[in-house]
Amino acid sequence: MSGRLLAAALPELPEITPGDDLGHLIVEAWQALADEDPALAPAEGDVLVVTQKVVSKAEGRVVRLSEVEPRPEAVAWAREWDKDPRAVEVVMRETAEVVRMERGLIISRTHHGFVCANAGVDASNVGAEDVVTLLPEDPDRSAARLRAAIRDELGVDVRVVVSDSFGRPWRQGITDVALGVSGFAPLHDLRGAVDTDGREMQATVVAVADELASTAELASGKTSRRPVVLIRGATLPADDGTSVADMIMSREQDLFR
Amino acid sequence: MSGRLLAAALPELPEITPGDDLGHLIVEAWQALADEDPALAPAEGDVLVVTQKVVSKAEGRVVRLSEVEPRPEAVAWAREWDKDPRAVEVVMRETAEVVRMERGLIISRTHHGFVCANAGVDASNVGAEDVVTLLPEDPDRSAARLRAAIRDELGVDVRVVVSDSFGRPWRQGITDVALGVSGFAPLHDLRGAVDTDGREMQATVVAVADELASTAELASGKTSRRPVVLIRGATLPADDGTSVADMIMSREQDLFR
Repeated sequence: MSGRLLAAALPELPEITPGDDLGHLIVEAWQALADEDPALAPAEGDVLVVTQKVVSKAEGRVVRLSEVEPRPEAVAWAREWDKDPRAVEVVMRETAEVVRMERGLIISRTHHGFVCANAGVDASNVGAEDVVTLLPEDPDRSAARLRAAIRDELGVDVRVVVSDSFGRPWRQGITDVALGVSGFAPLHDLRGAVDTDGREMQATVVAVADELASTAELASGKTSRRPVVLIRGATLPADDGTSVADMIMSREQDLFR
Repeated sequence: MSGRLLAAALPELPEITPGDDLGHLIVEAWQALADEDPALAPAEGDVLVVTQKVVSKAEGRVVRLSEVEPRPEAVAWAREWDKDPRAVEVVMRETAEVVRMERGLIISRTHHGFVCANAGVDASNVGAEDVVTLLPEDPDRSAARLRAAIRDELGVDVRVVVSDSFGRPWRQGITDVALGVSGFAPLHDLRGAVDTDGREMQATVVAVADELASTAELASGKTSRRPVVLIRGATLPADDGTSVADMIMSREQDLFR
């Protein structure tokens, strides 16, 4: 473990539309970065953090609001809070369970088990007035597909994180977290490891996937068109078959709720 | 904004004991790093992320368990869950409000307003069998003091984060978050900024302080004696007088709770 970490945003991607070969576009951007700085050429074990928005767009997880027929509940809520009833309808469709619905905000548990604002439905940075994006249907699978595409084209095995910005309880502000991963275990289980005094560490399971997502957000910034960040130097646990889906806490496990 | 971020753990610090001049020890470690790699010499705007444990130890926020008289409630709880009643007593003293107390775990709201396991009381990596650390009394002030000490010695104005590892609801695993900051605003308020389509971003306040803490954890790893990480290249909001204390959500604001 070198204790040294580098995060570098890849150059801008073009506007992504459904059906685009995102893996190939990422490879092109990465090669452009490597042309600028050969030290950043693709290397085994590199991590690519890709924001959900471009993944959703490439996968066609977009909804044209002009084609949405809002249910009466969505119309009523939208009128009360000055929202677009069709956007509210889409949020309701993506919601498995409403955690909170007040002051114009809907906090949902999605069918993946993620708890987030508006069930992850997003209108910003979508590139067309009446289009919203949904979260990928299976973000772990999205990450695996991108990883396979990059390996096929470059012959290099990278790790992939699909990220999004989530709020949380107790503290203000959003941070980026992992929706899906491929190529490593998203939780680094240090239970049983000894600390510097030789004492066994009791309850230390580090959410490295989420820390990678936050690092990438910090490197790229929110207002940029640079949705992919290369991270090099992180010590990550080997792939053990677990994925972000396994990070979701059941109500029974969850003492923080 | 370069889109490039570097995180580098400073060399090991010696075992910290109450009264140690932590600022000076950090300066020494940083100079050792710069001797190895002159590019990492202290520079204006650099961020240092310092884990809570060494800050607490230097500030004397440690408790010798042999001097603790547990209350009957602590004795009963400790017996039920096979804990040290004196450690439970310390947790109870540091707790302003119990969020959850079950299966041997106490989730507390501390007097700072932080919600975390065991009110932040920690027995790992403390360097003596019967000693536990408490969170710093005012971590924003701890960060400000370290920043002032480094500026006095090096003539360089750095930004400081005091970090700790917290669990959270909904998702497994801990991530590092900021307990205190100095030299920048911990929340980057992008409301009113326009996204790449020229649309105003509605609800984007990024908890950059927490993202810095997570980045540092990823760079240093948990089992090391390297409690200080240098981060360079982050675009951070200017100091506006806000601190981590201002990140705490009131119950009324908190829709995620």
